[in-house]
Amino acid sequence: MQVNQQRLRSDIESNAEFGAVPSEDGRGRTVLAASDSDRRAREFFCERLRDAGLTIRIDDVGNVVGRWDPESADSEAAPVAAGSHLDSVPEGGIFDGPLGVYAALESVRAMQDAGVEPVRPVEVVNFTEEEGQRFGGGLVGSAVAVGEMSVEEALEIEDEDGIPLGDALADIGFRGDGRLDASEWDAWVELHVEQSERLAEAGVPAGVVTSIVGLSRCAVEIEGEADHAGSTLMDDRSDALAAASEFVLDIERATTERTETSETAVGTVGKFDVSPNAPNVIAGRASLTVDVRDVEYESIEYIIDEARASLDRLERQRPVTTTLEHPWNRRPVEMDDRCRNALHAAGAEAGLETMDLHSGAGHDTMHVADVTDAALLFAPSRDGISHNPREWTDWADCADATRVLAGALASLATE
Amino acid sequence: MQVNQQRLRSDIESNAEFGAVPSEDGRGRTVLAASDSDRRAREFFCERLRDAGLTIRIDDVGNVVGRWDPESADSEAAPVAAGSHLDSVPEGGIFDGPLGVYAALESVRAMQDAGVEPVRPVEVVNFTEEEGQRFGGGLVGSAVAVGEMSVEEALEIEDEDGIPLGDALADIGFRGDGRLDASEWDAWVELHVEQSERLAEAGVPAGVVTSIVGLSRCAVEIEGEADHAGSTLMDDRSDALAAASEFVLDIERATTERTETSETAVGTVGKFDVSPNAPNVIAGRASLTVDVRDVEYESIEYIIDEARASLDRLERQRPVTTTLEHPWNRRPVEMDDRCRNALHAAGAEAGLETMDLHSGAGHDTMHVADVTDAALLFAPSRDGISHNPREWTDWADCADATRVLAGALASLATE
Repeated sequence: MQVNQQRLRSDIESNAEFGAVPSEDGRGRTVLAASDSDRRAREFFCERLRDAGLTIRIDDVGNVVGRWDPESADSEAAPVAAGSHLDSVPEGGIFDGPLGVYAALESVRAMQDAGVEPVRPVEVVNFTEEEGQRFGGGLVGSAVAVGEMSVEEALEIEDEDGIPLGDALADIGFRGDGRLDASEWDAWVELHVEQSERLAEAGVPAGVVTSIVGLSRCAVEIEGEADHAGSTLMDDRSDALAAASEFVLDIERATTERTETSETAVGTVGKFDVSPNAPNVIAGRASLTVDVRDVEYESIEYIIDEARASLDRLERQRPVTTTLEHPWNRRPVEMDDRCRNALHAAGAEAGLETMDLHSGAGHDTMHVADVTDAALLFAPSRDGISHNPREWTDWADCADATRVLAGALASLATE
Repeated sequence: MQVNQQRLRSDIESNAEFGAVPSEDGRGRTVLAASDSDRRAREFFCERLRDAGLTIRIDDVGNVVGRWDPESADSEAAPVAAGSHLDSVPEGGIFDGPLGVYAALESVRAMQDAGVEPVRPVEVVNFTEEEGQRFGGGLVGSAVAVGEMSVEEALEIEDEDGIPLGDALADIGFRGDGRLDASEWDAWVELHVEQSERLAEAGVPAGVVTSIVGLSRCAVEIEGEADHAGSTLMDDRSDALAAASEFVLDIERATTERTETSETAVGTVGKFDVSPNAPNVIAGRASLTVDVRDVEYESIEYIIDEARASLDRLERQRPVTTTLEHPWNRRPVEMDDRCRNALHAAGAEAGLETMDLHSGAGHDTMHVADVTDAALLFAPSRDGISHNPREWTDWADCADATRVLAGALASLATE
């Protein structure tokens, strides 16, 4: 089965224009969920689905599904589905998400070109708000599709300006009807960029994920006293930024310690705001997030315990008060053997080497795996960089991984 | 000479309405230079000047001067001047600045009421952009008034949105003509809240400043690599926030060490921004300010040297690059003996105890002292808090300090 590299590249490059951010280092884009650039990305995606003869449905929370229902298929049969997301982090890269969406579409086109006759419909999916940069903590569309979050709850999530997701989707013309139900799928496969360097280092074009890390996300507040930087002596200060700096280093230290037990453990303070944030005012408040992940759940527990201990110590040693909220706590998720085997077999058939690896990043597939057989396939990332304009996957690598995806989907859909 | 506490309080409370910020803890306000709340504060101030029979002039950079030119005075004589500023930090207090402006006006009214017959005109001054929260590094109006900065340079300073100060002043109707020249004053006195607790602890209602601390302000940039928080192993990271956290603690440690030599030394990282500032992205860049002050210039040199050493160490120990810009570097400034003596004498005459102390905060008086005889008077600050809605000075303390100011101005203006 032939994948058309030029057609795939053209789709991804066209998509990269929406929310494009000028960068000397590479190609950046900012596509926050239900923003105007997301609208343009979605409208272009729908055009491309229609061009391939797929029928489109948009659900209550803006998930977009393109369905290929060829004559060979039983239209009542449980579909095989593939896709990813079109939104991005601020100043993110052009592959994280769009590769999986357009590789799924290219797989359908490749099957059509090759005259494959599936017995199941094939669906191509764009999930809403995967990155969690505007509404909630991420993976929103897939959370609704697996019933982990209700439609109502999702539509009410507000952005920083108090705009609910439901209104923002209506504004861009992508608030549809009904709920996409992932449990109705026979199988699901997502292709994504690896976001680390294992494939590139091994010289292998496609990675089959064995498990997705567990993930915990906490919100921490540290309260000190905003005071004049010139007339408050060092002994009289309650500096929230200095306390928060100790916390950041405690997280880094605890996580690095844990890597001696489980080398995949990671802990990150990525969002960090101080208030009032003025050169001549001692910080009165610091607000930050902690993101902890590992394939071993014990690592997450260990690092969160260390975070709590750090805050307790800071409260004893500095005149600050602290809070830690722990809204997200997801255990590691195993991928399905049948789907993984289909990917390895498709690689072998295409003459492409595949290897097993874990995923350090959360993906919509984490949710889908709760309700049906699911797998996750990685394409190599240059230097392992993502969430950055320097994110890059060579077009030949995009095409090779898409060949593996297309082969697996063809096999799963003709079973 | 009687000061009217109710009249003074009414002026300060009316002024507190402009840019008022709701706060459970006290009375906050946000009056950024040349903003709409600044316009309202300035218009009210001009009304009050006119009510007291003062003539108003507004200079090129928006400095406002109300001039009392009684028949007893030689209108060609060098004036005695007093005042402060009406702008504030974000969510600042209601006394920092306005007390000095309205105490100067109240002093003129008190002299008028008491039939004082000055031989010199008396000027009441509001300097533009003292806090440096919107345009440049602060003390802008007084820098122009002493010739340290040209009118053109000041008018071209842009805010974060690229709006030049000149345009912003024109927009609020406060871009005037000519340049206020502080060197034409015979003497200058500024009343300000202390912003620390020495007066309150000593139970003394008025503090006469001996010297104002030197001040250095640096801008630091730390560049790492923005990367995915889930798929970048701990060993592969270049986390700008973790590096910046070490730097914040190094500044705190170096400054605390220096207080063993000079207890007035202070060093603060108050403005601190990370980018892209997302929970699931390792910080690729941290931008921060360092504010260092002391009455001993050697302390400033020591702490800035330690800051540079910290960045050098971080570049050796972590995969980051750093820059330190050092745009501000002002030596400590001594206050004038003649003006200080006038303040002590006025206190004695009013039956109010006065004490000598230093100023840890920079004030417009730092500039004025370069070109004429200048002094700075402090009123007690409750708990030493300022730049915060909890900033407070009791109304009786405001009135007592104003009695000292009025007495000194009367004496300086009748010499």
